[in-house]
Amino acid sequence: MRTEFRSALTSAESTLADLADTAAGAIEQATVALLEADLSAAQRAQEQNKVLHERVNELENTAYDLLALQAPVASDLRVVVTVVKLGADVERMGSLAAHIAETAQRGSRIPEPLVPVFRQMGEVAQQMAIDAGAVLRSRDTTDAGRLSDDDDTVDRLRLELFRQIAGNWEHGAEAAADAALLGRYYERFADHAVAIGDAVVYLVTGVAAE
Amino acid sequence: MRTEFRSALTSAESTLADLADTAAGAIEQATVALLEADLSAAQRAQEQNKVLHERVNELENTAYDLLALQAPVASDLRVVVTVVKLGADVERMGSLAAHIAETAQRGSRIPEPLVPVFRQMGEVAQQMAIDAGAVLRSRDTTDAGRLSDDDDTVDRLRLELFRQIAGNWEHGAEAAADAALLGRYYERFADHAVAIGDAVVYLVTGVAAE
Repeated sequence: MRTEFRSALTSAESTLADLADTAAGAIEQATVALLEADLSAAQRAQEQNKVLHERVNELENTAYDLLALQAPVASDLRVVVTVVKLGADVERMGSLAAHIAETAQRGSRIPEPLVPVFRQMGEVAQQMAIDAGAVLRSRDTTDAGRLSDDDDTVDRLRLELFRQIAGNWEHGAEAAADAALLGRYYERFADHAVAIGDAVVYLVTGVAAE
Repeated sequence: MRTEFRSALTSAESTLADLADTAAGAIEQATVALLEADLSAAQRAQEQNKVLHERVNELENTAYDLLALQAPVASDLRVVVTVVKLGADVERMGSLAAHIAETAQRGSRIPEPLVPVFRQMGEVAQQMAIDAGAVLRSRDTTDAGRLSDDDDTVDRLRLELFRQIAGNWEHGAEAAADAALLGRYYERFADHAVAIGDAVVYLVTGVAAE
């Protein structure tokens, strides 16, 4: 029974890592959709988000099934709870990518001076999701720490965005509102990747990340 | 041991309901801060958010302690996992109220035509947090359903906000960006209240909310 539990738990963790990769794919496609007005990329981001929701739902059910097994010890149960929590994180990452894709689908275009900012945000966010998946597989706490550095980059890019909006903005109120929201979506996506890294650090070391 | 577990679990659920009330207080103060440029209200919202984070942290530790007890059956463990998940929801509600308070602290003022929209958003969001706490206490699934109706009201108010930004907007790009983000914070706050209601429905009926 105990072996069965451990093997099911390892499989759930591995699924979670795969879902982080799906989230990376979703934000990549959403960013392409946004910057290139590519509606088929937007569609792909939406589909990846849909897959993420379905698979997180399955993952949660698997976690609840695991709780029904008799042998688990407390430390393993803690991993089960963490899997459910991180499932919610990757699910949000998918939703945020979908919001970015929706903005592209509404026909909103990024004003030219902001294109490099969003391009970099997209690249960093995508890499963070990939790294979060890698950390889930390796349980390497150093890699988990790097996620916080990348998060600082996203925050810096978001400040640059606000500087442009508050400066000599010539693109209208609606574009300002869209840009602010898009910046928020990327920031939150990055936050969830950091949360995954932090949870792994906590599982490995028993100490909460700073 | 089993009695000990049940009593600790009931206490954790009751703490969660209290925290939903704290979130209601935080969004109330944040809205006052925003609409009246009241910096002491902003301060109170920030303090309530800080309390929320500390208490959710304690709640999570309590949940992990519960997992270490030997007697829990699977259905009880499911409640433990739900408590941890909903802890994350109320924590986010606190953070969102704090973001609204921060916007007020930065000196951002709501353009006059949007004041009624934000006033109503604040009232509905506050009521939703109170209702989420009540549902946690009563496990009344009808009350849980009402949370979705209120969420529709918040979404409608947010659309009104966008209509104004996309219309004859005379308040500049920065105010448009702030208004869009503030609308997003209220919307997410409401979403988390709905998530609490949905989780209670799921615990009671075993069927996911629509």
